[in-house]
Amino acid sequence: MEQTKIILDENEMPKQWYNVLSDLSSPIDPPLDPRTWEPISPDALEPIFPKAIIKQEMSNERYIDIPEEVLEIYRLWRPSPLYRAHRLEKFLKTPAKIYYKHEGVSPAGSHKTNTSIAQAYYNMKEGTERITTETGAGQWGSALSLACNYFDIQCKVYMVRSSYYQKPYRKSLMTIWGGNVVPSPSPDTEFGRKILKEQPETPGSLGIAISEAVEDAVAHDNTKYSLGSVLNHVVLHQTVIGAESKKQLEQVETYPDIVIGCCGGGSNLAGIALEFIKDRIKGMHNARIIAVEPSACPTLTEGEYRYDFGDTAEMTPLLKMYTLGHKHVPPAIHAGGLRYHGDSPIISKLCAEGLIEAVSYDQYPVFDAAVQFARTEGVIPAPESSHAIRCAIDEALKCKQTGEEKTILFNLSGHGHFDMSSYDKYFNKELV
Amino acid sequence: MEQTKIILDENEMPKQWYNVLSDLSSPIDPPLDPRTWEPISPDALEPIFPKAIIKQEMSNERYIDIPEEVLEIYRLWRPSPLYRAHRLEKFLKTPAKIYYKHEGVSPAGSHKTNTSIAQAYYNMKEGTERITTETGAGQWGSALSLACNYFDIQCKVYMVRSSYYQKPYRKSLMTIWGGNVVPSPSPDTEFGRKILKEQPETPGSLGIAISEAVEDAVAHDNTKYSLGSVLNHVVLHQTVIGAESKKQLEQVETYPDIVIGCCGGGSNLAGIALEFIKDRIKGMHNARIIAVEPSACPTLTEGEYRYDFGDTAEMTPLLKMYTLGHKHVPPAIHAGGLRYHGDSPIISKLCAEGLIEAVSYDQYPVFDAAVQFARTEGVIPAPESSHAIRCAIDEALKCKQTGEEKTILFNLSGHGHFDMSSYDKYFNKELV
Repeated sequence: MEQTKIILDENEMPKQWYNVLSDLSSPIDPPLDPRTWEPISPDALEPIFPKAIIKQEMSNERYIDIPEEVLEIYRLWRPSPLYRAHRLEKFLKTPAKIYYKHEGVSPAGSHKTNTSIAQAYYNMKEGTERITTETGAGQWGSALSLACNYFDIQCKVYMVRSSYYQKPYRKSLMTIWGGNVVPSPSPDTEFGRKILKEQPETPGSLGIAISEAVEDAVAHDNTKYSLGSVLNHVVLHQTVIGAESKKQLEQVETYPDIVIGCCGGGSNLAGIALEFIKDRIKGMHNARIIAVEPSACPTLTEGEYRYDFGDTAEMTPLLKMYTLGHKHVPPAIHAGGLRYHGDSPIISKLCAEGLIEAVSYDQYPVFDAAVQFARTEGVIPAPESSHAIRCAIDEALKCKQTGEEKTILFNLSGHGHFDMSSYDKYFNKELV
Repeated sequence: MEQTKIILDENEMPKQWYNVLSDLSSPIDPPLDPRTWEPISPDALEPIFPKAIIKQEMSNERYIDIPEEVLEIYRLWRPSPLYRAHRLEKFLKTPAKIYYKHEGVSPAGSHKTNTSIAQAYYNMKEGTERITTETGAGQWGSALSLACNYFDIQCKVYMVRSSYYQKPYRKSLMTIWGGNVVPSPSPDTEFGRKILKEQPETPGSLGIAISEAVEDAVAHDNTKYSLGSVLNHVVLHQTVIGAESKKQLEQVETYPDIVIGCCGGGSNLAGIALEFIKDRIKGMHNARIIAVEPSACPTLTEGEYRYDFGDTAEMTPLLKMYTLGHKHVPPAIHAGGLRYHGDSPIISKLCAEGLIEAVSYDQYPVFDAAVQFARTEGVIPAPESSHAIRCAIDEALKCKQTGEEKTILFNLSGHGHFDMSSYDKYFNKELV
């Protein structure tokens, strides 16, 4: 039987990030200045991002070197293992081969550390003393707290209120790594106070939390803002996932027919998929790429592809992306990391061009898949990642009907150890 | 710089467990029948254990083959990585080399799966349909729930009441894997009802929970009992930890001067240490072995070495061990997994013979060490495992004073993702 875990040595870890912008058929539509609706100049972003990050955001270089200090921290968990899901396959009685990349092995429990470490590093190099951010489910806030801790930077996290109360232990986790967490909307910003006055019962949203974090960064000296998804540089940092996965699949002499990732802001999907999209653009292979989103926040499946703000208060640049509208407040579903009105401009463009397909699922079938996965593979998946599992299972079940021995690869973007209250609600049939 | 993670291939996983009983200078004192105080006969244990387990409990074979079905499940997380704690060393400014074996990578989050899988397998082979057990912090209950799930056996967990309420999400975890969890003392057993009547406010104890689980197993058909520590067969199954660790240290051409494990029932300490004790008995090497326990439950450091019951209700065989007395109810400290009045007879004998040293620590210095570890190595350790970290740090600090470049190995027996309420209490200075 083929091995269960496909492992790379530390010296096989990718030394460069892959920039898909260099390979697109046409340039990506640029971000626009919210005041003028003209393409934004790099220096207009300097109040919130360090120069190295702005340069990466706009770069067209195909490969960008990963700094040695970042690689050193990556080594705490990278290369992450690729698993062959033998037990899940057997349970499903499918002829398909299912592989999953386990990004939950990072200390913060998800893929988010791939970019948080890089962003904190570049901030440290440019003298940033404090970083602000938003977090939904708490995966990103945890990852950034850990990263800031490594570079001796203060970290202020605006956590979407509904998640803050659903997942109190995510706050504890951030505290252990030195992060300072408040529920958003908060009284700490002007925009937060405004929302609290107008809608005291709001569950909050990523859009609101981003507005607060950006306002805080602009208002304070030596403070920058950091975003955990959506933007090009974040997508760039996540490409280590796909690069490793491809090498690992080569070890067992296979190539995926289908590549699946859940999609909120799009970075974990991009992380696993862009390496294979590169091959597709080059005409070398033709893997199907599937983005999976919750039907409660169906950005790619039901949104419009147009310019929109990244936040609720209209402070961020306008991005060309699939969007449900920046005033949209999604219901408080338990996959908090997928509650975002917009999507990565890179993922959006690839969707619009037909290189990525999108599907959406309701919560119950997603948790059904999560529990099937936990009972076969052992690992408790995050509700976000469980969207990818649901889709992978459905594709494997199609193979069972057709008899096709497809190779399915999905990104297990994080573990669900801090999502027990959501599982409790699932078992008690209280998911709303 | 030496690599961070020292990894073994799946085919380098040990295929046998090591039985230290074969190498002891004198036979271990046998368990006694609680009714007669005579050495217990194997068949007297059959109401609670399958025959294969009883045979292992009393075996003198040096090596025992690990069944292929068990190895197959081990492959989900084994071989576990050995880490060089570069960042912790740097933080401590110590010349010592610190290595930790990361058993927290198992799906249930601790070393306990090494024995739960084996025990569930042997039960399945002999037709057991239901297994009862106790759990303290919940690590063992989780591990057994996962294991029973794999072999289609029902699992009933009596969880020490104080932990049940301190760690509600451990219950959720067991539920995901199909376990049925109740707080102990419970109304489900005669002994539980008696305790509830006499001491309605009791925090419970492992001794009480063991009594309930044993009573339940004896009272029901096709039901056996399973213990997660203390006994010889449990210790046996954990020896994969030390066997892997030794191979991994050989890869970097080193051998430990000091081997450290936290000690409740003793199985994770035995797991990492016996491989090195074997070398010591053979006169090949001379590693110091240190057992670390909480000062609130100082079995090895302050208990007596004598025959005592394993449980509160005096239902189990008498074991020759260090004990605080089987009626002892330790305070509800947060390292629930270390709240046991007794200790493994193997560990106890090795302590009595001077092959193992024991130290104890208060909770605050243990959590100080846990947070230092989390902020350097990233991983959030279980409070139990943090006892080993405290001791490793102290030994490394001694090296800083003396300038010695000792090699320190400790067992990170589990992660602390389900112990956030304990960390919260630590930060709020509410640990009692």
